[in-house]
Amino acid sequence: MENTTVSAPEEANASNRQVVLASRPDGIPQAQHFRIVESAVPRPGPGQFLVRNRFLGVEPAMRGWVSAVANYAEPVAIDAVMRSFAAGEVTESNHPEFAAGDLVVGMFGWQDYALSDGSGVRKVADDGIPLSAHLGVLGMNGITAYLALLDIGQPKAGETVVVSTAAGAVGSCAGQIAKLLGCRTVGIAGGPQKTALCTDEFGYDAAIDYKGTPDLDAALEHACPDGVDVYFDNTAGAISDAVMRHLAIRARIIVCGTASISSWAPWPSGPRIERHLLVRRARMQGFLLFDYADRFDEAIAQLTPWVRAGKLRYREDVLHGIEAAPDAIAGLYRGENLGRRLVRLASCSSSI
Amino acid sequence: MENTTVSAPEEANASNRQVVLASRPDGIPQAQHFRIVESAVPRPGPGQFLVRNRFLGVEPAMRGWVSAVANYAEPVAIDAVMRSFAAGEVTESNHPEFAAGDLVVGMFGWQDYALSDGSGVRKVADDGIPLSAHLGVLGMNGITAYLALLDIGQPKAGETVVVSTAAGAVGSCAGQIAKLLGCRTVGIAGGPQKTALCTDEFGYDAAIDYKGTPDLDAALEHACPDGVDVYFDNTAGAISDAVMRHLAIRARIIVCGTASISSWAPWPSGPRIERHLLVRRARMQGFLLFDYADRFDEAIAQLTPWVRAGKLRYREDVLHGIEAAPDAIAGLYRGENLGRRLVRLASCSSSI
Repeated sequence: MENTTVSAPEEANASNRQVVLASRPDGIPQAQHFRIVESAVPRPGPGQFLVRNRFLGVEPAMRGWVSAVANYAEPVAIDAVMRSFAAGEVTESNHPEFAAGDLVVGMFGWQDYALSDGSGVRKVADDGIPLSAHLGVLGMNGITAYLALLDIGQPKAGETVVVSTAAGAVGSCAGQIAKLLGCRTVGIAGGPQKTALCTDEFGYDAAIDYKGTPDLDAALEHACPDGVDVYFDNTAGAISDAVMRHLAIRARIIVCGTASISSWAPWPSGPRIERHLLVRRARMQGFLLFDYADRFDEAIAQLTPWVRAGKLRYREDVLHGIEAAPDAIAGLYRGENLGRRLVRLASCSSSI
Repeated sequence: MENTTVSAPEEANASNRQVVLASRPDGIPQAQHFRIVESAVPRPGPGQFLVRNRFLGVEPAMRGWVSAVANYAEPVAIDAVMRSFAAGEVTESNHPEFAAGDLVVGMFGWQDYALSDGSGVRKVADDGIPLSAHLGVLGMNGITAYLALLDIGQPKAGETVVVSTAAGAVGSCAGQIAKLLGCRTVGIAGGPQKTALCTDEFGYDAAIDYKGTPDLDAALEHACPDGVDVYFDNTAGAISDAVMRHLAIRARIIVCGTASISSWAPWPSGPRIERHLLVRRARMQGFLLFDYADRFDEAIAQLTPWVRAGKLRYREDVLHGIEAAPDAIAGLYRGENLGRRLVRLASCSSSI
């Protein structure tokens, strides 16, 4: 983020509101760990362009992005704009490949306006698919589900695929893609509203309410009589501990997220998994989207016709105004959203 | 095992001593869980041959073979002969492919004599390599090390390979093979005698005495400055928990054994590993030798020239007489052996 006192002509009266990291949380970032500041809208320098954000992403992974614990990326610095995906419109450009009016998705951060040099930015077509979808089902959620499922899970038609946070942004895509590939799909979610979504909207063959069931093992046994061939794990914790007891021979476990672990300090314990992996000759592997940048286009090309045909459905949970952002991550961990959480900026007057 | 009252002519005065499972242990089988019984030497029926055992195998995996907990094979029945690998000589045959005098290795059990129909039996050449080696470095130990390392570990020259039970029968092979493939090898073993074996006899670049070191994490950090690319895990437990904290990006963990876990009832807990796998994008997979029967010949063909050239060294810990068998598994878990444990039968008068 580069600030300048010279505003773009068309934004002469605008200011740039930014959500910055105020202090470093121990576990899940809460509203009080952020602060909203206001400054002048910057102007693009040579090779840069200015993006006016329409939608800001809110991801469970953001917990990791602000954590001081060893991670896959540098943590967001104190007083820096919160890192995030966002979708918006180019309003001014000195970059040969981007022009005013272009719709773009990138790591623009939790702010009204962002400068970019084009790194990691994707232009999206204005072709009837809503802009927000490019932050979800055709963005990191769908791409994560597709690549993790295919690359690590390697599901075969007829196999049983279990998904945790099954009605969530990534989980719902994973379940639907597995179903499109001919698998039997079993979703695990919290509460009857989410399990109903699993079966009624996302086509799971069975759904287990881990909060409501008296015996998760019995429910898994019933839903997966031949064992679990692929487990798409977004939670870790007690849900995953139960699934590990029901693996089929040569099962594959995709470690995609750890939503149920509220803190890694002190480091939590759980039932040892070595014996499950050994007896079932199972494979467990961590997935990180950023390793697969060279395959994003492949994934989007596969997913787009499914979305257009209504075969890959998605839900959004849209908060309004940048003031909603600071509490939005904590809300994900409170389980309050149904669908991919976004913040729609109040300044957004466009119909896209 | 088929008993008959008619003895083979050459064994007229012999009897067949057998170690049978007397009761089912909760954890590690102890001497009192076995009983030695004596019966007549059986005679081979049509399509069968009789083997006089020279060496009986003693494996950590035998704990699993007598366990009632879900496993990869039917547990040994109470009063049945203890399942084991053994090496011996055919003394009488009604089988077209085996003749008296042939040296053979197979699942002949803890007994003096065994009947076989040839299933899973391998003939070995009498070519200067000692018969006992075919139960170890050229038997399940070496084959396990080779196939697990190559198939799951996939080490590349220059990578760091860490092995637990590094001076043991499987571990010492894994470390030497990794070294032959151009890796930096780090062995973890218990006590100065075993770590000296690691560096002096098995060529590890570094060895860590997990019993003697005041800080296993610091020792790993020092021995693996670039992190652990491949972990050949024979122990699970606290040793593996420490190694998991030092994984390199895209590490591979071979779950080959769980020697440090004395009982799985009640199921033991340990630090959760999901975050390690996620942040390091690591892969962890269970290995079971019996899945790879179609590649045993390939492994033996690779290993034999290394053994003959003295590049793949091995140690044996030979107990004498079948009376030593019942306590022999417990002794492995007491850590009392240096090298692959075998029982040499007292009746063995041959020089092989």
